[in-house]
Amino acid sequence: MDNQRVRQLLASSPGDARVATRGWVRTHRDTKDIVFIELNDGSCLKNLQIIIDKAGPAGGDQLKRLATGAAVTVEGKLVESPGKNQAVELHADRLTVVGDCPADYPLQKKRHSFEYLREIAHLRPRTNAFGAIARVRNNMSTSIHRFFQDRGFLWIHTPIITGIDAEGAGEMFQVTTMPLDKLAGLQPTTIDYSRDFFGKPAYLAVTGQLQAEVYACALDRAYTFGPTFRAENSNTVRHLAEFWMIEPELAFCDLEANMDLAEDFVRTVISDVLNDCPEDMQLFDQRIQKGLIESLQAVARSPFKRISYTEAIAQLKDSGIEFTYPPEWGAALQTEHEKCLTEQIHNCPVIVYDYPAECKAFYMKQNPDGKTVRAMDVLVPRLGEIIGGSQREDNLEKLESRMQAAGLNPDDYWWYLDLRRYGSVPHSGFGLGFERLIQYVTGMQNIRDVIPFPRTVKHADF
Amino acid sequence: MDNQRVRQLLASSPGDARVATRGWVRTHRDTKDIVFIELNDGSCLKNLQIIIDKAGPAGGDQLKRLATGAAVTVEGKLVESPGKNQAVELHADRLTVVGDCPADYPLQKKRHSFEYLREIAHLRPRTNAFGAIARVRNNMSTSIHRFFQDRGFLWIHTPIITGIDAEGAGEMFQVTTMPLDKLAGLQPTTIDYSRDFFGKPAYLAVTGQLQAEVYACALDRAYTFGPTFRAENSNTVRHLAEFWMIEPELAFCDLEANMDLAEDFVRTVISDVLNDCPEDMQLFDQRIQKGLIESLQAVARSPFKRISYTEAIAQLKDSGIEFTYPPEWGAALQTEHEKCLTEQIHNCPVIVYDYPAECKAFYMKQNPDGKTVRAMDVLVPRLGEIIGGSQREDNLEKLESRMQAAGLNPDDYWWYLDLRRYGSVPHSGFGLGFERLIQYVTGMQNIRDVIPFPRTVKHADF
Repeated sequence: MDNQRVRQLLASSPGDARVATRGWVRTHRDTKDIVFIELNDGSCLKNLQIIIDKAGPAGGDQLKRLATGAAVTVEGKLVESPGKNQAVELHADRLTVVGDCPADYPLQKKRHSFEYLREIAHLRPRTNAFGAIARVRNNMSTSIHRFFQDRGFLWIHTPIITGIDAEGAGEMFQVTTMPLDKLAGLQPTTIDYSRDFFGKPAYLAVTGQLQAEVYACALDRAYTFGPTFRAENSNTVRHLAEFWMIEPELAFCDLEANMDLAEDFVRTVISDVLNDCPEDMQLFDQRIQKGLIESLQAVARSPFKRISYTEAIAQLKDSGIEFTYPPEWGAALQTEHEKCLTEQIHNCPVIVYDYPAECKAFYMKQNPDGKTVRAMDVLVPRLGEIIGGSQREDNLEKLESRMQAAGLNPDDYWWYLDLRRYGSVPHSGFGLGFERLIQYVTGMQNIRDVIPFPRTVKHADF
Repeated sequence: MDNQRVRQLLASSPGDARVATRGWVRTHRDTKDIVFIELNDGSCLKNLQIIIDKAGPAGGDQLKRLATGAAVTVEGKLVESPGKNQAVELHADRLTVVGDCPADYPLQKKRHSFEYLREIAHLRPRTNAFGAIARVRNNMSTSIHRFFQDRGFLWIHTPIITGIDAEGAGEMFQVTTMPLDKLAGLQPTTIDYSRDFFGKPAYLAVTGQLQAEVYACALDRAYTFGPTFRAENSNTVRHLAEFWMIEPELAFCDLEANMDLAEDFVRTVISDVLNDCPEDMQLFDQRIQKGLIESLQAVARSPFKRISYTEAIAQLKDSGIEFTYPPEWGAALQTEHEKCLTEQIHNCPVIVYDYPAECKAFYMKQNPDGKTVRAMDVLVPRLGEIIGGSQREDNLEKLESRMQAAGLNPDDYWWYLDLRRYGSVPHSGFGLGFERLIQYVTGMQNIRDVIPFPRTVKHADF
């Protein structure tokens, strides 16, 4: 007899055919004649109720081994349930405990704090909330791949280990095979990178964008979906040292089309998860953030407002609101400004474009005004920036001069510059942090709870 | 007018409607009255032939800028082609060179060696072979995700940075934020990891299996698809320091069902790429390895032979073949043995199971014979091992004793052991290197040519 998953059985009609399933005991309850088991196998949030007649063939020794967390296999018939929580329940005539669970099991019935669950990250996917996060994360991953595949983008695996500091930006982790304790015996001047694995200093990549541009400038459209790293000493609920990024890149594409793609992307991924994971999303709406589903539905159906950075600054100044950081042309938008634009001024997602050059990275296309670049940020209510992107500078000389101004050595980027030397095209792309998006969709407060095993300052456990 | 991709246009019928497309000039040819352009945009291997009447509206200045590698946009009508290489061609009445390509462009018409193309890895996706590899790689990625998603597996992002040496196996890269030049000034005994980012030594993961087991033991089935690392000083055509691995893990699953899954997996991914990428696969069959498609079709349709390691050794000894390494019970199978089993003895893929414990990793389930473990390797003709897997040891005491025998400290694996402490289940999984699989499917000789930007000893360019 084939085993069926709980999700399948819950969607089945009662019948005389024997069925089999297996999973872990979430709770069990013992009455005079009957034992009730709530069985979960991760296929959905809901448990399957198992009913065992103590005097029947499944009664006996195995029942004594039942415990929260025990692994069991069951067989029996699916019957209509008199309870109001489910349409069907399984009347078992066979029960086998394949894995016992002693009384010191950390996940007893009572609810645990997310802080505590982080200390047992190897067990937390057995809870309702973290099972739901795993399913939602998986659904969003699948939705993202489908979005780009449907549009002819190729998934590109850009390198994790890199010889360059790609954004001229962040703190990077160094990667080495030189034994640190032996280095310590040497004089400071004697670090000889020819003895290191790559023959030169190597780091963990902070972005795959530059390599994605290589593929977009050859095959028209590509996207990355992979891990990226920041060695920032930021101990906040929004920072991870290791996180997954999505970075599409599209040739023959200007900023306008890039904004279209980003808007379509946000709308599609949010619609998909609302459609595909209604039960898990209900859990987040009820237990994590009230009104979550409604706020996501609003994003999925409202057109995104598009305003230039210059307009945004003017609107913020005109708003009469007192900000901690008064808005000023030339300065980056703060989260308070982003939230004001989306929640108070426009009451919908907002795309801000044409930022001052000094706020943005060297590779963004310069506008004819000599002051701004073709950057865009997608801002959403509740969060602020969720996507950052730009049209890329496709003019060789302009790109070189921006690099030099940023203190980068163009020789290190010879291959990136070649893309502008040989058959250069207008091209654009954007990036988003996957965990930030999951946080936004689930309402989870702490980013460490939306990735299986978070890496942060002083934490690389499991 | 919407732009169409070359692939769409080649599949379209001739007609009076105006169409637009864009891409890069692969070659162009100038006759007295007509200019012919072979245009490629990466959507498929085949080029679209563009015909320009020099006396017509698209003639003139733009034509002078045409060059191999130039980026162009064209508009016109799709007409029936008199040539035998294509059904349609585009008669352009509008041509714009958006990106010139000077004469020093490294990819002129002549064919280049793969060695040379590796030095210009940022331009090689513009060639036929590397465009095909990118499309095949993308197709196989998609097929792999679909295979697991269709079967209810969740894609899990396991950590790249890890505090443990997970397989007790390989050379690992160390990850640090301590400035190496400052370390060099210190005494060897003074390396103080409390000053490093994670507060302890950290490495790049060689596997995600142990964390995938966490998710399988909570949600029944999970898979990884992400980068993994080996700091091995192996300068061969089969080794990369950074490569992508796929590792499914399934609860309530014994070795038999694990072999079923692996066989189904290999067959499905190979069938998909043969069906989805016929044109690209033809290129590999014709230019890289004669007979490739036929050999893959054979794998996709033949049932895989299953024999125990003990039988395999006996068959190898009985074969009468002289091996460089004579087969001997207790020793690992060499590639020559694996090829002999698949190509000479059975003439089909072979799964060898129940290996001697000492050949295999600590986490594999011990057989009652006290000598072998429930390991399995999938061997295919032309290559040898393509998949390695096992049923995992689900008994706490046995796992601990194998760990100790392997010189590992069980305390470092407390969370992994907890999976056997609380609701343990029989579970199994396997792993495969994605690039090895692509090598097998494309016939490419050097693994550095099937990943966009290879990382190997002394190479971390681009």
